Amino acid sequence: VTKPIFLLTDFGLEDTYVGQMKAVLVTRAPLSPQIDLTHSIPPQDVRGGARAIDDTLAHLPRSAVILAVVDPGVGTDRRPLIVTVGDLAGVGPDNGVLTPLLRLPGARAHAIDPQRAGAAALSSTFHGRDLFAPAAAGLATGSSPAELGEPVDDPVVLPPEPGPRRTSTGWTGRVVSVDRFGNLITNLRRDHLSDLPRNAAVELPTADSVPLVRTYGEAAAGELIALVGSGGFVEVACNGGSAAEITGLGVGDAIELRL
Amino acid sequence: VTKPIFLLTDFGLEDTYVGQMKAVLVTRAPLSPQIDLTHSIPPQDVRGGARAIDDTLAHLPRSAVILAVVDPGVGTDRRPLIVTVGDLAGVGPDNGVLTPLLRLPGARAHAIDPQRAGAAALSSTFHGRDLFAPAAAGLATGSSPAELGEPVDDPVVLPPEPGPRRTSTGWTGRVVSVDRFGNLITNLRRDHLSDLPRNAAVELPTADSVPLVRTYGEAAAGELIALVGSGGFVEVACNGGSAAEITGLGVGDAIELRL
Amino acid sequence: VTKPIFLLTDFGLEDTYVGQMKAVLVTRAPLSPQIDLTHSIPPQDVRGGARAIDDTLAHLPRSAVILAVVDPGVGTDRRPLIVTVGDLAGVGPDNGVLTPLLRLPGARAHAIDPQRAGAAALSSTFHGRDLFAPAAAGLATGSSPAELGEPVDDPVVLPPEPGPRRTSTGWTGRVVSVDRFGNLITNLRRDHLSDLPRNAAVELPTADSVPLVRTYGEAAAGELIALVGSGGFVEVACNGGSAAEITGLGVGDAIELRL
Repeated sequence: VTKPIFLLTDFGLEDTYVGQMKAVLVTRAPLSPQIDLTHSIPPQDVRGGARAIDDTLAHLPRSAVILAVVDPGVGTDRRPLIVTVGDLAGVGPDNGVLTPLLRLPGARAHAIDPQRAGAAALSSTFHGRDLFAPAAAGLATGSSPAELGEPVDDPVVLPPEPGPRRTSTGWTGRVVSVDRFGNLITNLRRDHLSDLPRNAAVELPTADSVPLVRTYGEAAAGELIALVGSGGFVEVACNGGSAAEITGLGVGDAIELRL
Repeated sequence: VTKPIFLLTDFGLEDTYVGQMKAVLVTRAPLSPQIDLTHSIPPQDVRGGARAIDDTLAHLPRSAVILAVVDPGVGTDRRPLIVTVGDLAGVGPDNGVLTPLLRLPGARAHAIDPQRAGAAALSSTFHGRDLFAPAAAGLATGSSPAELGEPVDDPVVLPPEPGPRRTSTGWTGRVVSVDRFGNLITNLRRDHLSDLPRNAAVELPTADSVPLVRTYGEAAAGELIALVGSGGFVEVACNGGSAAEITGLGVGDAIELRL
Repeated sequence: VTKPIFLLTDFGLEDTYVGQMKAVLVTRAPLSPQIDLTHSIPPQDVRGGARAIDDTLAHLPRSAVILAVVDPGVGTDRRPLIVTVGDLAGVGPDNGVLTPLLRLPGARAHAIDPQRAGAAALSSTFHGRDLFAPAAAGLATGSSPAELGEPVDDPVVLPPEPGPRRTSTGWTGRVVSVDRFGNLITNLRRDHLSDLPRNAAVELPTADSVPLVRTYGEAAAGELIALVGSGGFVEVACNGGSAAEITGLGVGDAIELRL
C-alpha cells in the first residue's frame, strides 16, 4: 500500500526547501505520488494553511497523506502532530494548521516521536524536511500513527473564523481571499442565499450593487457579478477582468448580501 | 495502460485550484504521471493556451492526455471537448484552446457527457476539477472518447494567427511572447530565413540592427542578437541580459527581417 | 531499475520550457519520478545553480539523477557533462554548475555524445530538452555514463566561494542569499561559532547587534535574531517578519560574527 502525499507549505518555490522535503519523501516512499496543493501560503499564515486544506479536503482520495508545514514555532516545544481519520492522515505542527482534519468525526491525534518516525539529525529550523517528511513517508508506506508516536487528546484546533452577521436586510460577510483571477472570495456561503428573492443582489462598500448570477460567462465583458464559486462561497468576479483591481477591494473588506 | 497527463491552465500556483484538479486525477488515475506544462497562461487567454500546446506538442509521448483548462465560458453552454489523434488526447473547453490538436491529420472531437465521464456534482465555475479532470483520468486509464461522449464535427478552431508580411526588403513580423530570460519571441519562422544573404539582419522599431547568429553565446556580453530559438521561431536575445528590458519592446511590437 | 530525476533550472515556471523537458523525460523514462528542486535560479546564474545543488545534496536518495540546466553557453563548444558518484549522477553543461558533485570523493566525468545519448535534432538554444533530458533519462533507466559518452578529466569546477574572514573580534561573512521568509542567509558556518562565548552576537552593518538563538520562535514577535539555519549556515531572521525588509540588507552585505 502506497498512499499519495499532498504537500502544503508556506515555502514558496523560489528556494529549494520544497525540493529538499520531496527528496526525503521520495527516498522513504519512492512509490508515493507527490502532489502539490500549494506552496504559496503567506509566510507563517497558519489560518491560511488550514483554509487551503479546507478547500481541497472534499476532493482528496480517501486514502492519502497531507503534509502541511506552516510552522512559525519550529524548534520550540510545540508538538509535531499526526491526525488520522480513517485512511486519511495529516502531518504537521500542532498549531492549528490541521484543524480541518481535526474537525472531522472520528479524528484522532498523535504526537510524533522523532526517533520512532525515523528522523535523523533534527535541525531546529526545518522540521518539514527532518521530521514531518519522514513521518509522512512512514504513514504513506503503511506505518500506523501508533507506531510513530503517542496519542494526545488536546491538539490545537483553531476557533471557527467569524462568520457573516445577520442584518435587517440580509447578511454582512467579508472578503476572505483573492484568487489569481482577482475574484473576491467571501465567507458568505450558499446557504446564506436560501429563500433568495429574485432581485437579490450583493452590495460592495463602494456602493456598487452587483447582480447574483450562476456563472462567470453570464455577465457582459467588464461587468461585476456575484456568484457561488467552486468552494461553495459567494465571490465577486468580473467577466474578463479582475474584480479586485476594478473595485479596489481586498481581504477583510465587508460584502453585504441584500435579500 | 496508464497514460501520463499533461496539465495546462491559467490558474497559477498561488491558489489550490491546480491541487484540487490533481487530487481528482490521482483519485481516478492513481498510476498516471501528472506533468505540468504550465499554469501561467494569462487569465482567460485562450490563444495563449493554444500556443503553449503548440510549443510542446512535438515533445510529448505518442500516448498521453493533455488537460487544458483556460475556460472563460465555464458554466455557459460552451461544450466540454475531447480531441483524439491516435493515442494522444486533449481535454478542455470547446473554445479553441485545443486548436493545435484539432489541426493534426485524423483528429476527432467528442463532446463530453458529464454523466458518462463520471462527473459528480458539477459546479458552474470549476469544470477543470469537476468535469475535465474526470474525463482526462478516464482517457488516461483506458476509456475511449466514444465511451465518454458523443462525436461532434464542428469543434471551435482558432483562426491562424496573422503571420509575417512580405515587404520589399524582407519580412515584417511581431513579438508574440517574452520569456523569463527577456527573449523577444516573434512569429518569424526558420523558413522566412531561407536564401538568406550573409549580411542578413533583424531590425527593431528602435532602429537597432541586430545580427543573426546561431546561438546565445556567440555575442559579446550585453550585445543584442537574433537567432532561431528552440521552437523554430526567430527571437531577439541579449547575451547575459534581457532583450525586453534593454529594448523596451514587448508583445505586439514589429520586428523586421531584412534579407 | 528506475531512478528519480531531480530537476534544477533557471527556466522559471512562466514558460513551457520545464514542461518540454519533462515531456522528454516521461517519454524516455516513464517510471522515473520527476522532482523539482527549483526552477527559480536567477537567469544564467551558474554559481546559484551549484549552490542549490549543495543545499540539497545531503537529502537526495543514494540512487538518483540530477538534471541541472543553467546554461548561458548553450550551443557554443562548452561540453555537455555527466558526473557520477556511485549511483548518483548529475547531468548538465560543463560550466561549473555540477561543482558540488565533482567535489565528492570518487566523482567521475564524461562528455555526453549526443548521438549515443539519443538526442534527436539538436537545437542550438535548448540542450536541456534536446540533449540533457535524453541523457538523464538514459541514466535513470540503467545506461552507464560510458555508454553515453567519453571520460574527461578536466571538467569545470568553480573556485570555492570566498569564505568569512577572521578579524580581531571574530569573523566577517556576507549575505549569500535571501529566502522567501526574508531570512538573510550568510556564508558563516556552524563551525565559525565553536568556542562561542555566552554573549556572542551578530553585528549588522546597520550597527544592530542581534542575539544568537537556537530557533525562530525564541524571539519576541518582530525581533531580529541570528541562528544556524537548516543548511548549516548562520542566518539573520525576524520572528513573524522579514529580516531583509526590516534591515534593508541583501546579498553581498557584510555580517560580523563577534565572539
